[in-house]
Amino acid sequence: MSGPQNPSGLSTAVIGAGISGLTAGKMLGDYGVPYTCFESSDRIGGNWAFGNPNGHSSAYRSLHIDTSKYQLSFKDFPMPGSYPDFPHHTEIKAYLDSYAEAFGLCDRIEFRTGVEHAQPREGGGWRLRTTAGETREFDFLVVANGHHWDPRYPDFPGEFDGRILHSHHYVDPQTPLDLQGKRILVVGIGNSAADITVELSSKALQNRVTLSTRSGAWIVPKYIAGRPGDRFLRTSPYLPASWQRKAVQALGPVLAGRPELWGLPAPDHKLFEAHPTQSVELPLRLGSGDVIPKGNVERLDGSTVHFVDGTSDEFDVIVYATGYNITFPFFDPGFLSAPGNRIRLFKRILKPGIPNLAFVGLAQAIPTLFPFVECQSRLVAAYATGHYLPPADAEMERVITADEKKYLGHVVNRPRHTQQVDYFLYEHDLRTREIPRGLRRARAAA
Amino acid sequence: MSGPQNPSGLSTAVIGAGISGLTAGKMLGDYGVPYTCFESSDRIGGNWAFGNPNGHSSAYRSLHIDTSKYQLSFKDFPMPGSYPDFPHHTEIKAYLDSYAEAFGLCDRIEFRTGVEHAQPREGGGWRLRTTAGETREFDFLVVANGHHWDPRYPDFPGEFDGRILHSHHYVDPQTPLDLQGKRILVVGIGNSAADITVELSSKALQNRVTLSTRSGAWIVPKYIAGRPGDRFLRTSPYLPASWQRKAVQALGPVLAGRPELWGLPAPDHKLFEAHPTQSVELPLRLGSGDVIPKGNVERLDGSTVHFVDGTSDEFDVIVYATGYNITFPFFDPGFLSAPGNRIRLFKRILKPGIPNLAFVGLAQAIPTLFPFVECQSRLVAAYATGHYLPPADAEMERVITADEKKYLGHVVNRPRHTQQVDYFLYEHDLRTREIPRGLRRARAAA
Repeated sequence: MSGPQNPSGLSTAVIGAGISGLTAGKMLGDYGVPYTCFESSDRIGGNWAFGNPNGHSSAYRSLHIDTSKYQLSFKDFPMPGSYPDFPHHTEIKAYLDSYAEAFGLCDRIEFRTGVEHAQPREGGGWRLRTTAGETREFDFLVVANGHHWDPRYPDFPGEFDGRILHSHHYVDPQTPLDLQGKRILVVGIGNSAADITVELSSKALQNRVTLSTRSGAWIVPKYIAGRPGDRFLRTSPYLPASWQRKAVQALGPVLAGRPELWGLPAPDHKLFEAHPTQSVELPLRLGSGDVIPKGNVERLDGSTVHFVDGTSDEFDVIVYATGYNITFPFFDPGFLSAPGNRIRLFKRILKPGIPNLAFVGLAQAIPTLFPFVECQSRLVAAYATGHYLPPADAEMERVITADEKKYLGHVVNRPRHTQQVDYFLYEHDLRTREIPRGLRRARAAA
Repeated sequence: MSGPQNPSGLSTAVIGAGISGLTAGKMLGDYGVPYTCFESSDRIGGNWAFGNPNGHSSAYRSLHIDTSKYQLSFKDFPMPGSYPDFPHHTEIKAYLDSYAEAFGLCDRIEFRTGVEHAQPREGGGWRLRTTAGETREFDFLVVANGHHWDPRYPDFPGEFDGRILHSHHYVDPQTPLDLQGKRILVVGIGNSAADITVELSSKALQNRVTLSTRSGAWIVPKYIAGRPGDRFLRTSPYLPASWQRKAVQALGPVLAGRPELWGLPAPDHKLFEAHPTQSVELPLRLGSGDVIPKGNVERLDGSTVHFVDGTSDEFDVIVYATGYNITFPFFDPGFLSAPGNRIRLFKRILKPGIPNLAFVGLAQAIPTLFPFVECQSRLVAAYATGHYLPPADAEMERVITADEKKYLGHVVNRPRHTQQVDYFLYEHDLRTREIPRGLRRARAAA
């Protein structure tokens, strides 16, 4: 394992070699930061490594990314022109492999080496204990452990005595459960819920599929007028975001249709006030009677599920597509955790009061994650090389509150929406405001 | 078997108890015409009787009708309010069962009794030979034997040595062939081709699916703005049809997108100049790389298929979703047939030169078949009771040519489009012009 040619900056550990860890590593390498990446699996890719032996991939066999390749590509490494508009998970994995290959990222990764415990050292820096039993010390810590691997379950009263499966463990209609000729309840209304509901409700499988959702969600198609819908959406930093949301909302009835037309609960928010669900197929399945829409679950009783509308039905299987917890298993919970998926981070990167720690990829960036992590990693690398200095803790806290209002003030107050960020506004803010300010702060302090 | 209370009109035979035969029978009964319906199967429903033992159903397990229930319902027998927007084939069958039950139609049907041969008697009327070995005589013959049961195959040069399946015989991914982990070529671009391509290309089945189509087709969604698309389409008889097509075509890019964006051949016609294919899922599957688009097949060679673009590929299975022949197996071909699916019929009902013969349901009525057959059956019943008289043969021939220009002048010249009719224009013409004229002709002749 060779370090950078001209090492500069703090010795750095990166936890995780998924999209976020790879991107952070690539950028740290660009800036000459000496770093080591710890990956619990034997491979890169994290969530996008289908069947990942570390259990951290939620990819099902049919999964395609819901962001088009035009929005998804790293700015410094475009996707192959031969890729389809919405690549399959195998193509995302191959793309990450070629990204790692192109920039020699694997040389810096210690595979099969998870971080069991991480704690600040007296006097600064970090002490890590790895699954290899080693204790390792670093000046700087980048947390890139992802937030789509610790399944979140709802806590409905009562007991269900059929089979229970979280979407995290769903692979295909035969794996890990034989889901043919079954009475299936899918709970949730995100992209996984929509995809799994559509897949299992194919009449060819002879299931009876019910979809239960507490909150209505807007369902938008992946294609608009034959082109990937996300090619049309680009928030401008020069106009009030609320005006831009209103403009898109005016198109709502044409783009999306009202979910209650298909029997789903009416959304308690306007279009794009929360991350919409992308599915062209779910409305059709609902309108064809292949999927039975229901509101929230009231309670469970043996094989019976009671819904809040007073109806009940019998089920063999419940699939919970109810999202994920944000979990940092290597931190003492009292030191740092995210109860209710809430964690106050400056620019979603820095924790006031804890220097030399950075989070990357810990957001639901709309419409695209990869360039989002790239722009975060620029700040992190500038920090690790001493060129960037964050503001004082009190100022960070003030900005966190203001940013929450900016990105989430209009958003439904739910665990799945706590991390929503508009990529275009975020990137513009980081590139033109926060990073230049931090560089000036660092120069002034020097 | 009881005849009508007050029989009037000609003794009539109806061939077939699918949608067309049932509707004709219902209307004949309303007008007091004594009739017998011959049905080769043990059940009603024809094409919509999934697994019909007479082999005449093309329904696959997942089939939903592509017309919404709002347009599909018989005018005198609405679909249950509980039905989904786009009912499943089992629901269509149940609806037909309840229609037959409500009007006592089964009493007039001789089940398991096909018509083997039908020929005009000297001096008028018809002589039928049934599969029961009987000879039966009638004054009037209604042909309602359907046109979606005799599979049409393309005649590509060369031989394919894998498995070949016509969409007519396709049931589900396990039936009649095990279509998992296979290299599959689907040929066609109609609704069956789209549905089967989507079903087989689910990544869960691990097939590699290629779609080959000679001609591009416009692909339109079943839902527009959350409502069944066909609720918006209603041709007015009071405006030139060409203007109305132009108005809808202007919306084309928004409704449909250009098929060549997804790698399909560019359509050689404008939107709605030919029956568009309804699929919300096919564009997504193409854009996700799950389906490989190809132009026409050039030739077959063992397991290799050569395409006109010069490429070739290996396949295990070819599914021909290439439509159906119009076939009248009970007529001597020299007496009456439809070579190239072309048959010159006055108002698509009457054959000049052959009195006391009527065809019903022999059209691709857009957007809806059921009310189309209802309005045809009104003319047929009026004819059988002597209240309607067709024009002279020469006048019928003149009108046939004019109507072909009206309904088909703008349509691509292909076997699958020879029968296209705009329901709204057709119904208005029959109700307000042709039936009143025929009643006047009958009164004048009396």
